[in-house]
Amino acid sequence: MQIARVVGTVVATQKHGSFVGAKLLLVQPVAPDDTPRGGTLLAVDGVGAGVHERVLIVIEGRAAGEAVGRKGAPVDAAIIGIIDSVDVEA
Amino acid sequence: MQIARVVGTVVATQKHGSFVGAKLLLVQPVAPDDTPRGGTLLAVDGVGAGVHERVLIVIEGRAAGEAVGRKGAPVDAAIIGIIDSVDVEA
Amino acid sequence: MQIARVVGTVVATQKHGSFVGAKLLLVQPVAPDDTPRGGTLLAVDGVGAGVHERVLIVIEGRAAGEAVGRKGAPVDAAIIGIIDSVDVEA
Amino acid sequence: MQIARVVGTVVATQKHGSFVGAKLLLVQPVAPDDTPRGGTLLAVDGVGAGVHERVLIVIEGRAAGEAVGRKGAPVDAAIIGIIDSVDVEA
Amino acid sequence: MQIARVVGTVVATQKHGSFVGAKLLLVQPVAPDDTPRGGTLLAVDGVGAGVHERVLIVIEGRAAGEAVGRKGAPVDAAIIGIIDSVDVEA
Repeated sequence: MQIARVVGTVVATQKHGSFVGAKLLLVQPVAPDDTPRGGTLLAVDGVGAGVHERVLIVIEGRAAGEAVGRKGAPVDAAIIGIIDSVDVEA
Repeated sequence: MQIARVVGTVVATQKHGSFVGAKLLLVQPVAPDDTPRGGTLLAVDGVGAGVHERVLIVIEGRAAGEAVGRKGAPVDAAIIGIIDSVDVEA
Repeated sequence: MQIARVVGTVVATQKHGSFVGAKLLLVQPVAPDDTPRGGTLLAVDGVGAGVHERVLIVIEGRAAGEAVGRKGAPVDAAIIGIIDSVDVEA
Repeated sequence: MQIARVVGTVVATQKHGSFVGAKLLLVQPVAPDDTPRGGTLLAVDGVGAGVHERVLIVIEGRAAGEAVGRKGAPVDAAIIGIIDSVDVEA
Repeated sequence: MQIARVVGTVVATQKHGSFVGAKLLLVQPVAPDDTPRGGTLLAVDGVGAGVHERVLIVIEGRAAGEAVGRKGAPVDAAIIGIIDSVDVEA
């Protein structure tokens, strides 16, 4: 799993049937100190996250499908938690 | 999922049986501001996308197989939506 | 599988139901000589590992789900062993 | 899926039982204009491809297993088509 | 699949139950001309490989689980063959 920050939203009216009703968020993976790491990606929201929140994401199809409660959904990334704190030990 | 732009097509007459009839598009993953990111790849079209359109792609086998409605298809990338707008919040 | 060092912990009170009770650790993948390799990631602990320990991790959804004994859990990385020694032959 | 060029062969007499009889080809992923991209990899041939041909490959376990008609085969890359032409639109 | 050279061993006494008895080898992925490519990783041995041998590895969970004959094993890399020769055509 990765730490990411929600940075935006995406609208796609014409999409695969199993996606209808799903919320797609644009997320930026970040390091524990919140610096960006790599490019943004799109994740299906499984926990009701909002823009600017720091979230826990899975980047893998089987896991993401489970996260949104639909095994057969064509998703490869999902938000599975909202992070309260990250503690890095020296 | 990733944002990508459809940039071309591929013809392969001799191919795996489960691919017959499938439309293969060459897509270029892009950042939210439309700058290219990484190399192009081939995705099976699951929504009727055309060249120059900005699309939503899954890059993972299980998800891609679901996207084209054939669990047993040997695909690892698929177009699952056509993007209307991307909104990045400051 | 990769060698990693446990470097911290993460707290996420609002998370996917199947994660309740799971311990999430922040791990830094390392080379056999213990130098960091790439960025940190979050792994579900399947063996009772602690901060500063050198561990064996799987980074893949199916494997990680098996590791934590829950096939349907939305996880993509898990700690599956605590490393005693690494022997590199010249 | 990726475009690749077949550049060689590999012989491995001692191998996993499910591989006996399978043809393993060394392939070089390439860009649409045929320039190499990244390192070579080994793919199981599912369509009767030969050295120097430009092929369509899947790089993912589930998809590759389907491609060679053996769900339980331990493969993570397969050749699933022979490419006739790639058309990139301006 | 990738070509790799076995470069060492790892001992982990405290590990996930399904790993008990499995042999874990440290492998270095290599190019066809035997130059190292990327970092080392740990693979479960499915064919009786030894240190210094050049092997065929799968790097993907489903395939690796099949390779070691245990679908439910939390593994993401496995040695599936011992390479006799690699032939790159000009």
